[in-house]
Amino acid sequence: MPKPDVNQTVPAGAAPASPNLKIVLVSPRNPLNIGAAARAMSNFGFFELRLVNPYQVAFREAKSAVKALGVLADALEFPTVAAAVADCGLVVGTTSTGPRVLEHPLRRLEYGGKLIARKMAAAPVAILFGSEKFGLSNEDISHCHWLMRIPTRDAHASMNLGQAVAVCLYEIARSPAAARIAPESKRAAAAADVERITASLENVLARSGYVHTRTEGSTQMKIRRLVRRMNLNAHDGEVWLGMLRQILWKLEH
Amino acid sequence: MPKPDVNQTVPAGAAPASPNLKIVLVSPRNPLNIGAAARAMSNFGFFELRLVNPYQVAFREAKSAVKALGVLADALEFPTVAAAVADCGLVVGTTSTGPRVLEHPLRRLEYGGKLIARKMAAAPVAILFGSEKFGLSNEDISHCHWLMRIPTRDAHASMNLGQAVAVCLYEIARSPAAARIAPESKRAAAAADVERITASLENVLARSGYVHTRTEGSTQMKIRRLVRRMNLNAHDGEVWLGMLRQILWKLEH
Repeated sequence: MPKPDVNQTVPAGAAPASPNLKIVLVSPRNPLNIGAAARAMSNFGFFELRLVNPYQVAFREAKSAVKALGVLADALEFPTVAAAVADCGLVVGTTSTGPRVLEHPLRRLEYGGKLIARKMAAAPVAILFGSEKFGLSNEDISHCHWLMRIPTRDAHASMNLGQAVAVCLYEIARSPAAARIAPESKRAAAAADVERITASLENVLARSGYVHTRTEGSTQMKIRRLVRRMNLNAHDGEVWLGMLRQILWKLEH
Repeated sequence: MPKPDVNQTVPAGAAPASPNLKIVLVSPRNPLNIGAAARAMSNFGFFELRLVNPYQVAFREAKSAVKALGVLADALEFPTVAAAVADCGLVVGTTSTGPRVLEHPLRRLEYGGKLIARKMAAAPVAILFGSEKFGLSNEDISHCHWLMRIPTRDAHASMNLGQAVAVCLYEIARSPAAARIAPESKRAAAAADVERITASLENVLARSGYVHTRTEGSTQMKIRRLVRRMNLNAHDGEVWLGMLRQILWKLEH
């Protein structure tokens, strides 16, 4: 029995949706970014969007957009960061800059995402994203337990808000198991079928004058190896056999 | 010596930029998405953007946007998928739908990203993204070696194009090492300082009438444990000591 294969048998999403993750946008200005954040949340199975002091026109526009999602309709508005994170056991701020002169630990997303996923099992967790232009203020950051950084390159560290939310949620939802397990390919063609293909190909090549009597033996083995290297699956094996038989028939008539 | 800490000492991006990765957008329609794809590429250190049959108005608009990047200025245009991937040793198509009746293996991003990163070391690799509305066509997919899927939830699988590009590039750029290594926290406060804080707090509490003579012994130990649970770093230890001494001075005068 082949091992169950996360990549083939669960190709569809298996994101561990959790009501314990709160995405908090602080002073967002652009309705497209608010909408994009909501869409990424829905994609990865997180539904609690909170906005702190959003630019009202942007919030209204995002909500009234044609494809506005439930996430957006249910979004809660708060006057301050303190109010938005009041129920959370862990508050994480995102930043694109290097370490500031702050007493906060700065963690890369690969590691921070793991800590968040673990904490989420026990208590509500908030991830804060600052405004498009200024990011989080020092006052915003003082409400955080630690800071998290997406590993972008120094020369262009700042990500688009909607894309940053998507990448953070992907890291939290991604499955390390899916990365480890090698996907089974389609059911491989049986050796007998591969050998039938080899024989048919040899026949075709002999009929075509490709194989010289002098080198027949070594050519045969070259062809056998060549056909094995195709790594045929059962379906493609049948297709090849059909094609070769047809060619052979044509060559013989 | 503490171990070097990827999360603290390399908080800034360490994305393995590679000229071998080609991002191919097939028939994109929205200039904002073309721009967002280019931005994510620049963020994660990939610079070869290729467009197949883009909607010309969208391409022009994206290029002329105020914040258009070098990635976009250098983008190449091709009439067909075949032409766009001609130099590539591996061609991967992205899809948000489940397995189609196609002979192509479908791999989750967690695993597919690893295969791509490995292949990139040896040969150019193309990742194809379909149009916003229709995704890749069966004809587009026939040029691919296999298909890749971001693990979104079934009920809302389809991602925004710019966000999908960002998430795929993040997976390829992310460092498994950074996920494994536990970040060192700031230099912890020395036990002697923690004990000084404990003594000061006890003093303050005694002066304030918080500690009753009857329970003094057990309170002392409770306070000692309480202070240890603060996990103070050296800097915060000094701050606490200063605050407590000031309070004590005020209580005594």
